[in-house]
Amino acid sequence: MTTVSVQEPAGQDRKAPGRPRNAQVDHAIIQAVFDLLGSGQSADSLSMEAVAAKAGVGKATIYRRWANKEALLVDAVAAMKGPLPELAGESVRDDLVMLISAMRNKRMEHYGKVTACLLPEIARSPEMRRIHQSVMEPRREVLRGVLRRGIASGELRADLDVELTLLMLSGPSFAQNVMQWSTRVAADTFAEDLVDAVLRGAAA
Amino acid sequence: MTTVSVQEPAGQDRKAPGRPRNAQVDHAIIQAVFDLLGSGQSADSLSMEAVAAKAGVGKATIYRRWANKEALLVDAVAAMKGPLPELAGESVRDDLVMLISAMRNKRMEHYGKVTACLLPEIARSPEMRRIHQSVMEPRREVLRGVLRRGIASGELRADLDVELTLLMLSGPSFAQNVMQWSTRVAADTFAEDLVDAVLRGAAA
Repeated sequence: MTTVSVQEPAGQDRKAPGRPRNAQVDHAIIQAVFDLLGSGQSADSLSMEAVAAKAGVGKATIYRRWANKEALLVDAVAAMKGPLPELAGESVRDDLVMLISAMRNKRMEHYGKVTACLLPEIARSPEMRRIHQSVMEPRREVLRGVLRRGIASGELRADLDVELTLLMLSGPSFAQNVMQWSTRVAADTFAEDLVDAVLRGAAA
Repeated sequence: MTTVSVQEPAGQDRKAPGRPRNAQVDHAIIQAVFDLLGSGQSADSLSMEAVAAKAGVGKATIYRRWANKEALLVDAVAAMKGPLPELAGESVRDDLVMLISAMRNKRMEHYGKVTACLLPEIARSPEMRRIHQSVMEPRREVLRGVLRRGIASGELRADLDVELTLLMLSGPSFAQNVMQWSTRVAADTFAEDLVDAVLRGAAA
């Protein structure tokens, strides 16, 4: 199974601890949630028992930190935040290819599987949806920044619809990463091919 | 709650009936699955009891038709097949706008919610995945047909990557329909805006 390093949980909705917190234990619990969801378990059927067993802790250890499964899932979604990618900042094409390629690494592949398993909960729970949005939004903002820079530099059309272009870059990537939607597009050159096709219409 | 007419279930993996089948009962059971999934229930937590109660039949009535929940879900996915859209067949732009717009009606909105709830099962079960693909593939083929016609007529570039273009049209639509991904793109003109942006790079 792919394992993915997670960042520190955000700590929202968590019980005030009765004794000093142990960050490693928090980490192991969140990692266990990721591993279980990433292996195809739905959030609905995820049990605190299974999380405890996977993390190698007692159930009481989890309940000392999170009041219920929902609070734990919210922190798990928040912990999906990886480091934002560093961009070369030279050509718009190179930066876009970098950003789209970064969605296809092992970490994001795992994140895609976890996201697929969380979609019903995201669709159902406004709080989960808000947290998921807050994970995605900084990534979108990086992509927007590259597009705005391209407009300013004259690499992209002055009247480019930034939000639609964002969706044209991220929608197909999501469909491929989370859904493995089409088996007929070349996987190796996907990022370059998509960026070039979008830029063909977006270039100044 | 939005209700959606479903077609006759495909009948795979179904028990040989002990007595003549009643299509209306089949229909009511499949409809109940759709209504429960469409209201945010995950496939995992869907119980045969809840389906029976919603459909107004006894649990034994379901088990006479389907050996287990998996067989029922497979038939429900197969029943998502609606009629394929009729195209004017004049301009490529008009046909593409029609196809993308058709993804945003009430039926497809409901289908999107049901799909979101089935994603963990689709990711986990090869059979569910196969069935889901078989629901999507005829729709993709219609889109491919329009693109190929555009290439033949000279409306689209001769070297257009049909599969990538398909993904550039369907990926953003999926992200908007199933995920309500971005709130910053205009909903009213989404289909026209997307088609025009894709065609800007794809036109001959």
